[in-house]
Amino acid sequence: MEHVKKYHPGYYPPPHCEMRWAKKDHIEKAPIWCSVDLRDGNQSLIVPMTLAEKLDFFQFLVKLGFKEIEVGFPAASETEYEFLRALIEQNLIPDDVTVQVLTQCRDHIIRKTFDALKGAPSAIVHFYNSTSVAQREQVFKKSKEEIKKIATDGAKLVKQLASEYEGNFRFEYSPESFTGTEPEYALEVCNAVLDVLEPTKEKPVIINLPVTVAMSMSHIYANQIEYMNDNLKYRENVILSLHPHNDRGCGVADTEMGLLAGADRVEGTLFGNGERTGNVDIITVAMNMYSLGVDPKLDFSNMPAIVEEYEKVTRMHVYDRTPYAGALVFAAFSGSHQDAIAKGMKWREEKNLYEWTVPYLPIDPHDVGREYETDVIRINSQSGKGGIVYILEQNYGYDLPPKMRERLGYAVKDVSDHLHKELSPKDIYGIFENEFLNKEAPFAITDVHYIQKEGVYAMVSVKEGDITVEYTGRGNGRLDAVTNAIHHGSDRDFSILTYKEHALETGSTSHAVAYVGLEWTDGSVSWGAGQHTDIIMASVKALASAINNHKEA
Amino acid sequence: MEHVKKYHPGYYPPPHCEMRWAKKDHIEKAPIWCSVDLRDGNQSLIVPMTLAEKLDFFQFLVKLGFKEIEVGFPAASETEYEFLRALIEQNLIPDDVTVQVLTQCRDHIIRKTFDALKGAPSAIVHFYNSTSVAQREQVFKKSKEEIKKIATDGAKLVKQLASEYEGNFRFEYSPESFTGTEPEYALEVCNAVLDVLEPTKEKPVIINLPVTVAMSMSHIYANQIEYMNDNLKYRENVILSLHPHNDRGCGVADTEMGLLAGADRVEGTLFGNGERTGNVDIITVAMNMYSLGVDPKLDFSNMPAIVEEYEKVTRMHVYDRTPYAGALVFAAFSGSHQDAIAKGMKWREEKNLYEWTVPYLPIDPHDVGREYETDVIRINSQSGKGGIVYILEQNYGYDLPPKMRERLGYAVKDVSDHLHKELSPKDIYGIFENEFLNKEAPFAITDVHYIQKEGVYAMVSVKEGDITVEYTGRGNGRLDAVTNAIHHGSDRDFSILTYKEHALETGSTSHAVAYVGLEWTDGSVSWGAGQHTDIIMASVKALASAINNHKEA
Repeated sequence: MEHVKKYHPGYYPPPHCEMRWAKKDHIEKAPIWCSVDLRDGNQSLIVPMTLAEKLDFFQFLVKLGFKEIEVGFPAASETEYEFLRALIEQNLIPDDVTVQVLTQCRDHIIRKTFDALKGAPSAIVHFYNSTSVAQREQVFKKSKEEIKKIATDGAKLVKQLASEYEGNFRFEYSPESFTGTEPEYALEVCNAVLDVLEPTKEKPVIINLPVTVAMSMSHIYANQIEYMNDNLKYRENVILSLHPHNDRGCGVADTEMGLLAGADRVEGTLFGNGERTGNVDIITVAMNMYSLGVDPKLDFSNMPAIVEEYEKVTRMHVYDRTPYAGALVFAAFSGSHQDAIAKGMKWREEKNLYEWTVPYLPIDPHDVGREYETDVIRINSQSGKGGIVYILEQNYGYDLPPKMRERLGYAVKDVSDHLHKELSPKDIYGIFENEFLNKEAPFAITDVHYIQKEGVYAMVSVKEGDITVEYTGRGNGRLDAVTNAIHHGSDRDFSILTYKEHALETGSTSHAVAYVGLEWTDGSVSWGAGQHTDIIMASVKALASAINNHKEA
Repeated sequence: MEHVKKYHPGYYPPPHCEMRWAKKDHIEKAPIWCSVDLRDGNQSLIVPMTLAEKLDFFQFLVKLGFKEIEVGFPAASETEYEFLRALIEQNLIPDDVTVQVLTQCRDHIIRKTFDALKGAPSAIVHFYNSTSVAQREQVFKKSKEEIKKIATDGAKLVKQLASEYEGNFRFEYSPESFTGTEPEYALEVCNAVLDVLEPTKEKPVIINLPVTVAMSMSHIYANQIEYMNDNLKYRENVILSLHPHNDRGCGVADTEMGLLAGADRVEGTLFGNGERTGNVDIITVAMNMYSLGVDPKLDFSNMPAIVEEYEKVTRMHVYDRTPYAGALVFAAFSGSHQDAIAKGMKWREEKNLYEWTVPYLPIDPHDVGREYETDVIRINSQSGKGGIVYILEQNYGYDLPPKMRERLGYAVKDVSDHLHKELSPKDIYGIFENEFLNKEAPFAITDVHYIQKEGVYAMVSVKEGDITVEYTGRGNGRLDAVTNAIHHGSDRDFSILTYKEHALETGSTSHAVAYVGLEWTDGSVSWGAGQHTDIIMASVKALASAINNHKEA
């Protein structure tokens, strides 16, 4: 990286900052949210939305709870002009929703914007001009005074046209490229604009301070916001707004710290769509609040549906690791994580807790429409037995004895190593069934009769290959008698190490499942499981399975 | 989002914090980087890497400049055991690189870990146990004292085995789930571990404070790190390390603020691969430093190759908006952004600047192996004429007169609206060629003769459909004479509004290109361009093209 000397900080810390924001722990109240999906998000798509897609997506944003939606730059795009007219003329804007349009501070563009807005029931006219050092010098080649005049001329014109046009208008001003602007100068421009617009309690003005391009660490931005918050005129009638982009991967932190520093409002998009690295992802900011017990006043309870709609209209893909929404964000592949989640879920159940405390899951996946069964415990070749056992129990009801779990773990690992793919719950069940359940070859117990007399006496029909023989034995209980019959009748030298049985709900029939671990005189241990409607048959089948699984040590 | 009451903050602010970190502007020096791609990253893949892929990726990480690489959890995975043995036995670890392995604080696991490490030229044994309130209560069901003893017992055993086994070992301890642990208790545990390990200047110990699950805003984590930094024993012989995950989308901010707060080292992965939302993306943190003029001591100068290798071995996709690396992060679709970038690039060229100051591009795309031609100015239906003109000039050398640019802009927008796709530079050229260049139907000028006498006298052969006629005219210059000939000879009433001509390098031949704008008596304006090796012929062809483009107003 030889060219590092090409760079130097291009931002300007405020002249003084108290950093009162840093003393606060977290955000206590949802800000006003403004979706810019249809403008900033849309303009940066490889294939922008069609008119029909825009109408569809607008209604989707309304359903999520957005009360302010930037719908485009109607003076610069025919589609956006038509879209806005359709919204107004077809009465598609709910009473409690305000549409917002963007316009540069240029006379004919502002006029065309008002043409597009005519008759809007409630609209925000968002006008902007670039104020950064770089843009003043390189793009506009104008002095600070001249740049300020662009802003105040724009303010005068929007104010005048708002009084002339039919409709209900509020105003938003952005000193664009704020993060490359000296805060004192940005303040001077904003205050000059406010002097023109004269905000009131009834008609507050939005001052939006964008991270047009991220240039500093997040706490510097928070300091800039705090400075503006402390020094803006008419502050009680100003709505202080943030519009962070994500060039440094800190869009969320910028937003959160900006809110602590005094901002009232956030402009962003779903999944951080937007120019370059995107705008701030409103979902993450909102769900971060949610995870600390603050109601974000947006409804993300069906995240899979949001992902689907978003992917459809934007033709973008939601990244697998996108917080709260990506395919993998609730997944635990690691054995110790799986084990902790399983214990945490059990803890929650046992204590009947409403409060969410499960390790490794920042929120309850159910709260955003995700499933424990498919989204959380997932099995790759790195996973341990904890997750495998959990899946078998949660999905199929089997609760294996501890030592048998280890054996199943090895069997599963063998398969995932060999197949080189993730294993589904069905795959896990298949391995369990295949390796342990009701195994009848080469050794099958075809029939058992018991006589209850001085303990239990068992007559056991056994089929090995083509040969059927009958063994008899006596014991304390039925399984004991069968074991002794086989032990003495055939050449097999084993004793029962572990025996466990439990009921199993499978569909409408209640089955019993039994697990048997046998210890052999050669030192080896073998395992089997048996499943049957009859509790005794289940244990006999488990025994036969364990015998079939004996491999000499 | 009805279940918001389920949540409350699960983190613990430190007992006191001065927030000295917040007074610093940015990171001044690269930390020690430790890649955990092969462990934390790998374990969370749907399909973990094969042994061959691990060997390949290890060498790739070395090439990028990583000096510490966590290679696995060898006691828990056969593949990772074999991988580590292969690295050691095949001498694949460069002299200046240290491998790191993870182990739980359990006797048999620590012993197996040392078996795997035998003969390592330089290795970090990274042992951990969970210290959070949730894990103590729900998973381990142990008291603070008991949990601390797990850590100190682990420390004693690693210290003992390190002296017994062949190899060169350092130690790292993580109080896992640090962000859910009371900082005072985490401090107590870490200091107890340090008392066992007795770090020295020659053998410093790494204390790693992970954001196992992100639970708070980034500045709270920074406060926690500052507290630990201020209160750890043996601090001068401790390397304070961060290991942030990204559950709240703030992994980068956590890392950056943690570094300001006193950390020396960062564990993370390329593109933030890792459990759930992933680990912190080291590329973003490093490139953020780079963009402020601080050498990150890692080489990301060929980002496309890094993306390719990463996608190959992980089978993950690098998201289009991933900072510094995603397909779209240098893209400007917006007209005003394109215009500012074009002006910024020109400014840089004119002033012969080394320093990077171009608006809307946080860094020079060339520094990470990206191209201006294909990655920056991109054209969708939302783009303005600025970008179109820039592409035509940068890629093909055409420099259209301002008013003609607008006409080309409309033509391009028509096509992109209609085709509903992004337009490539070739597409843009195609539209320009199709609409404006050397148009000869229905009106063609087949031949011109000039006589230089009292100004210029022109004899012009014109073919319209099947009919060829000859017109004559007189003028101040050649184009003027041709114009007058056609004007008077045919029924056409126009005058030249704009004329511009420049040389054009196309391959080995030098062509001239001319642009003509005609104003017609019906009030309309039409445009044409002509290209030819002969400068006069170029202008005549431009005139014919403009005549062909006349549509009555």
